[in-house]
Amino acid sequence: MGGDHGPSVTVPACLALLERHAQLRLLLVGRSDALGAIAHPRAELVHAEEVVAMDDPVEVAMRHKKRSSMRIALELVKEGRAQAAVSAGNTGALMAIARYVLKTLDGIERPAIAYPLPNVTGGATTVLDLGANVDCTEHHLLQFAVLGSALDMALKSRDKPSVGLLNIGSEAIKGNDMIKRAAELLREADQKSLIHYYGNVEGNDIFKGTTDIVVCDGFVGNVTLKATEGLASMVSTILKQEFSRNAFTRLAALCAMPVLNAFKRRVDHRRHNGAALLGLRGLVFKSHGSADQLAFEHALSKAIDAAEHQLLQKIQHRVQQAATLF
Amino acid sequence: MGGDHGPSVTVPACLALLERHAQLRLLLVGRSDALGAIAHPRAELVHAEEVVAMDDPVEVAMRHKKRSSMRIALELVKEGRAQAAVSAGNTGALMAIARYVLKTLDGIERPAIAYPLPNVTGGATTVLDLGANVDCTEHHLLQFAVLGSALDMALKSRDKPSVGLLNIGSEAIKGNDMIKRAAELLREADQKSLIHYYGNVEGNDIFKGTTDIVVCDGFVGNVTLKATEGLASMVSTILKQEFSRNAFTRLAALCAMPVLNAFKRRVDHRRHNGAALLGLRGLVFKSHGSADQLAFEHALSKAIDAAEHQLLQKIQHRVQQAATLF
Repeated sequence: MGGDHGPSVTVPACLALLERHAQLRLLLVGRSDALGAIAHPRAELVHAEEVVAMDDPVEVAMRHKKRSSMRIALELVKEGRAQAAVSAGNTGALMAIARYVLKTLDGIERPAIAYPLPNVTGGATTVLDLGANVDCTEHHLLQFAVLGSALDMALKSRDKPSVGLLNIGSEAIKGNDMIKRAAELLREADQKSLIHYYGNVEGNDIFKGTTDIVVCDGFVGNVTLKATEGLASMVSTILKQEFSRNAFTRLAALCAMPVLNAFKRRVDHRRHNGAALLGLRGLVFKSHGSADQLAFEHALSKAIDAAEHQLLQKIQHRVQQAATLF
Repeated sequence: MGGDHGPSVTVPACLALLERHAQLRLLLVGRSDALGAIAHPRAELVHAEEVVAMDDPVEVAMRHKKRSSMRIALELVKEGRAQAAVSAGNTGALMAIARYVLKTLDGIERPAIAYPLPNVTGGATTVLDLGANVDCTEHHLLQFAVLGSALDMALKSRDKPSVGLLNIGSEAIKGNDMIKRAAELLREADQKSLIHYYGNVEGNDIFKGTTDIVVCDGFVGNVTLKATEGLASMVSTILKQEFSRNAFTRLAALCAMPVLNAFKRRVDHRRHNGAALLGLRGLVFKSHGSADQLAFEHALSKAIDAAEHQLLQKIQHRVQQAATLF
């Protein structure tokens, strides 16, 4: 029901995914009048009267909308009727309700939001946390490193994904006290082969692809993600403005179209859509609110991938191994 | 002497500026063999035997290079022989030596690094702090707001530059405890007409140009700056790769060249080169280490502008007014 476009995007994306995956079964949770358009033997409608609005405060979503589509979808995961939940809705509400309904894994104090940012190697760097936790300790950062490693091992089939600690310089002496303690803890975890720790990385390393995973507190992660989204949007706006300035530039745009399209495909963030909420006793994926059909399909695909690769079991296993350091 | 290219960039930039500004006098501080190329009636060579290397730890620069070109240039400012100092060298060393030689203004605990990031309106958003201070209190953020406002008023002739507080959401309830206290303090300063406080802004607002100034702690600021530099560099690399893929794409590049050049001019960060070290008893500007001649000219121009517009006196005035809240 959620996202900027609601069922007009999510329903066609669901139908496309059902076509592509012969084993896929979908439970569509929401108002039957809005989701009625879907008629597929492997799609089942689960009616929910209430909907969490994109701007609902977390308290409203938690206390006053106990039969919301979001809540019911997460309960289906808890009951084992669904292997994963996907939402394009209100991120804060999704995280809070997921934490309340599903609970965190033993040893994990706070779930994290992990998102892949495209890098220049053609791959993507998994960055976490992206906004769930504004005040982090070094132990939270270690938990993020373990969660992110399990995610990359399961979904990207990486053997030993490398973890970078986001800092303001590559030297070990840089950063505030918490970051220095986190670096020590990550080094210890590396020595015990619980993660593969690379060392400090800087903001630009995210887009260089220096490491597979970058860990940071949710405040820094969220500001960084939004700043880069802002820059990307500015670059795209200015390119469009310059190419549509007059008849000559529009002709140039025509000539350059195949190249510009190839460029767009390579930097298309829709291909990476779908943030993982990690550290919960169930699989939950968050699509960007502004996702179009293609982007929402990618978020659904990730959830399918995660269920098929038994991400939850793999995370539980890694967390158990590392728990003595948490 | 500093920067990635040293005098091969800084000397020609100095000569170009001397041509353009008939009143300008330059003191070139460094090794006479390296700076000997400059011969101009309004340029004076000040010999310095030692040079702070780009990778010298701050301690080495401070304690073991007491006659470095950086140190002597800052002493010329302190003695009133120079109205401003410009360096393309080691940022950490420049900040530490500037603080030691010049001292901070009464009421300012920590100097800040302010840098303008281009935004989609065609202007630039002044962001501070960008890395001088990794652990900030709400009082530091207020000081940054006052320093940044004085800078924009002097250099951009803005009457009431607006200040945004970098946060993870626009609602007042967002952020960690320090950020919430900072928001209160900034609101109080606004009520006393000491600054013009807009409220919370998010990472993307920097590039939207929502406010004239964005304040944040140096850790968040530095990570954000480097992440956006990393993204910009990735976009530029991929554009180049796509346009040079084969004969057809190279032809397309030829057609699109005037438009791509116009685009490049608009996003050209060299036009904004020159970070201000604010809160000191003297004017100090830091050029990006990788600056080419054009970029270094811009950093020099800013220093000239700041001296002509009496930035230091204006900052002192604003800081005195606001000191009761610090």
